[in-house]
Amino acid sequence: MADFSKGAAWIRGDIKPIEEATIGVTDWAVTHSDATYDVVPVWEGAFFRLGDYLDRFEASLAAWRMEIGMNRADIMEALHAMVARSDLRNAYVAMVAARGVPAIPDSRDPRDCANHFYAWCVPYIHVVTPEIAANGARVWLDETHRRIPPESVDPRVKNYHWGDFTQGLFAAKDAGFDTVLLPDGAGNVTEGPGFNVFALTGERVVTPEAGVLHGITRRNALEMCEEAGLQVERRALPLAELLEADEVFLSTSGGGIVPVAQIGERRFSNGSAGPVASQLRARYFERLAEPRFRTEINYGA
Amino acid sequence: MADFSKGAAWIRGDIKPIEEATIGVTDWAVTHSDATYDVVPVWEGAFFRLGDYLDRFEASLAAWRMEIGMNRADIMEALHAMVARSDLRNAYVAMVAARGVPAIPDSRDPRDCANHFYAWCVPYIHVVTPEIAANGARVWLDETHRRIPPESVDPRVKNYHWGDFTQGLFAAKDAGFDTVLLPDGAGNVTEGPGFNVFALTGERVVTPEAGVLHGITRRNALEMCEEAGLQVERRALPLAELLEADEVFLSTSGGGIVPVAQIGERRFSNGSAGPVASQLRARYFERLAEPRFRTEINYGA
Repeated sequence: MADFSKGAAWIRGDIKPIEEATIGVTDWAVTHSDATYDVVPVWEGAFFRLGDYLDRFEASLAAWRMEIGMNRADIMEALHAMVARSDLRNAYVAMVAARGVPAIPDSRDPRDCANHFYAWCVPYIHVVTPEIAANGARVWLDETHRRIPPESVDPRVKNYHWGDFTQGLFAAKDAGFDTVLLPDGAGNVTEGPGFNVFALTGERVVTPEAGVLHGITRRNALEMCEEAGLQVERRALPLAELLEADEVFLSTSGGGIVPVAQIGERRFSNGSAGPVASQLRARYFERLAEPRFRTEINYGA
Repeated sequence: MADFSKGAAWIRGDIKPIEEATIGVTDWAVTHSDATYDVVPVWEGAFFRLGDYLDRFEASLAAWRMEIGMNRADIMEALHAMVARSDLRNAYVAMVAARGVPAIPDSRDPRDCANHFYAWCVPYIHVVTPEIAANGARVWLDETHRRIPPESVDPRVKNYHWGDFTQGLFAAKDAGFDTVLLPDGAGNVTEGPGFNVFALTGERVVTPEAGVLHGITRRNALEMCEEAGLQVERRALPLAELLEADEVFLSTSGGGIVPVAQIGERRFSNGSAGPVASQLRARYFERLAEPRFRTEINYGA
């Protein structure tokens, strides 16, 4: 019996343990970071908002001209089979489109590449651990590294260009912080490694609109804010406005809503999780259980 | 007998055919493009300027805090053994440092990752085919995509963040051009996918200094220009100055000096390879044969 306890992968129709899931070192997904991907959570045996994640993945495929030879039904079948085989009830499920290698030897033309799809799942990932999230995360605002601008690589096409985040994470961890937020070149905050950011001031919630991934958990957060009667604004968020907010929180498919207790020297809510952010965090976990968002997985007998 | 005709790879001490060389799909080298690399040419049985390429690779390792557990002698031994085993006399040799995965489960801290080294070689790659290079390449200047700025990802640390280049290549190929040059956000040219750029006006040669890889072939080009009595300037190169030059050429470890016949609608030398660039191209191939630059490979009996 194969051991799927650490996760599973679907590669060219085969389902295998995650440890055996590999990609060629000359694939342009590696040598040009030429891949687009998406991640959908599995929570208590069901995909959460699967259609929304697939919508975004398909938009990314079109934007980056990836032709994977699989339609939505094929992708869903692969994801279902893989997660069922893994037997994971709470999982982080990645679907990836890779550029591949040119079918024509020596071609440097991306149009000549044989694109391909693969997927993998591992036990549910928390981008910030639940213990830290419950008390409020401590976030480093790294003003020496700037988020890759959308004129260079469009962040709405979910991608693996993380060099800016990695350098920011090193700076954050060296300074003793949990994670990092990056600015753009115009004095606004953008996003962090795996999450969007929100600033709450009075009844108004602001989140950046340009130069960031339009996260599905960001969408959940905006919907929950509106349900709570808050006024939502999607626009540039200056660093000064971020630091002057009453509360700040993050949104990620790897853990939901994460209250922020501190950004650099600035403490929010006396250095703890704010009340509104904490409510939204609890509300997100309720959402994960709502049938309207769930696509149940048949794990078999 | 293993078939190394398409190339070989060195992975964790094993040398294997390139088709079998893979990396895990969850390695941060894939999921965060968290890798730095270098490529050294092998020409007629010898590495070319190996020490210079290794100097740069080691500088990249330090900049990105990669600890691969191998010193320069170890790396050289791996590269020699791999190329000898491949029996390739003219090769493109890649050495890669990958972030790996965290040794601590669920860590999102790059400091917790087990970094590792691998290498691979394939028959010599021409970034622009020799036929096109001899007649002068036709280059697209893509003003809709900007090179990732150094404040986001330092291009001097050779890396796989190529999303900007890939989009530019699609635009170039769609327009019927051979390759692409990208501007920065301030109206200057930067570099293209795998090459630096030079503009010759009269006796003066200008090449961008900031926001570009400091290529080893760029260094060869600058040395050859000085030997030829040309005046060399390393500074910002405005797009207008590029287009008004007498000659333009590219430098790449995958093919040396490539004369440019055309950038967009602007033709140089009546749409052919310019005389100075053509001389530099010939001179580069002579350099490849000079003993002072060569590290001979012992292919065995």
